[in-house]
Amino acid sequence: MTAMRQFSRQITIRTRGRGFYEFTDEVAGLLRPTDLQTGIATLFLQHTSASLLIQENADPEVRRDFERFFARLVPDGDPLWRHASEGADDMPAHVRSALTSVHLSIPIAGGDLALGAWQGIYLWEHRLIPHERRIVAHFLGE
Amino acid sequence: MTAMRQFSRQITIRTRGRGFYEFTDEVAGLLRPTDLQTGIATLFLQHTSASLLIQENADPEVRRDFERFFARLVPDGDPLWRHASEGADDMPAHVRSALTSVHLSIPIAGGDLALGAWQGIYLWEHRLIPHERRIVAHFLGE
Amino acid sequence: MTAMRQFSRQITIRTRGRGFYEFTDEVAGLLRPTDLQTGIATLFLQHTSASLLIQENADPEVRRDFERFFARLVPDGDPLWRHASEGADDMPAHVRSALTSVHLSIPIAGGDLALGAWQGIYLWEHRLIPHERRIVAHFLGE
Repeated sequence: MTAMRQFSRQITIRTRGRGFYEFTDEVAGLLRPTDLQTGIATLFLQHTSASLLIQENADPEVRRDFERFFARLVPDGDPLWRHASEGADDMPAHVRSALTSVHLSIPIAGGDLALGAWQGIYLWEHRLIPHERRIVAHFLGE
Repeated sequence: MTAMRQFSRQITIRTRGRGFYEFTDEVAGLLRPTDLQTGIATLFLQHTSASLLIQENADPEVRRDFERFFARLVPDGDPLWRHASEGADDMPAHVRSALTSVHLSIPIAGGDLALGAWQGIYLWEHRLIPHERRIVAHFLGE
Repeated sequence: MTAMRQFSRQITIRTRGRGFYEFTDEVAGLLRPTDLQTGIATLFLQHTSASLLIQENADPEVRRDFERFFARLVPDGDPLWRHASEGADDMPAHVRSALTSVHLSIPIAGGDLALGAWQGIYLWEHRLIPHERRIVAHFLGE
């Protein structure tokens, strides 16, 4: 019997403003040295104005359509917003984050992330100006 | 002391096009033979144009209202979409998936899924044509 | 080597109708006596008409903007809804729950929840009248 083991890692992503930042390879690169074959990877974003999202990583037009849709659904500078201390994109960033998510749970199988063929792991930055975003990556398994 | 154990299972659901497919019983049926009493079940969908959703499983009108709402919120064939290589429902399917989720974490208690009285586990297919959808079910506990 | 341990706890929150109810301190208070230093906390809401959400806990105007936005996006009494057996806010509550989430996975680090500086854990009640909401809190780690 192998004993269950866990590993906690920190990922920092410096964004250049609103947009998608894929970091699938970085997560896989942190998982590999743990030598875990089966288990669960948990990713947790320590911010409320950006998201973690699993989406198609083939056609970049998909991400541009996401931006167009969310710009229409949750408009910057909407007169609805009263919380605007950090700018016209401040409250929309919080809403975009709530409509998506700040955490992901991905099974580990065969020593790798059990992602589908077209799935990539993205940090979705919702603020217009660059930010430094911190993600906790936790790996648990055997 | 009992040692922590884990089990990884594959679920395949053949959808008949857009709509809700409940598979609560299938997950419970995979959990039971593991004999885990307490722990965590993780469900992960390996696709980006469908969702995993926990919702009310009493009145079927709830699911029809969900379809009506999402058809209005994320319309098929919206001129906004530029990614339409697989049809008018392609990009809406990705957005619907992002607005909901592709993974679920459900505690295990008393040897069963700790769902509320009215909660069911659904695959929500967003594409119009039938698809074969793969879900990884991971059970961890004692 | 320390063995992996787990703890399952129940949280009950009596809501006074629609709105945000922070319970970060209650989760931290349940975690502390387990003496877990590193691991994963899973929170699971056993209802489909409320949400669990991690959001900014500084300016209360953020939560009021969330309410204003969702009131416009998913209106009570919209003629679209056919499921209204429990009132005009019934189906909107289910949709709000699906657009956010009913479960959270938060790493444990240094014996505490690894939340960001401004992150709070909220129950978001979507029904207008008071409800008693049950949450399963599961802690796993060493």
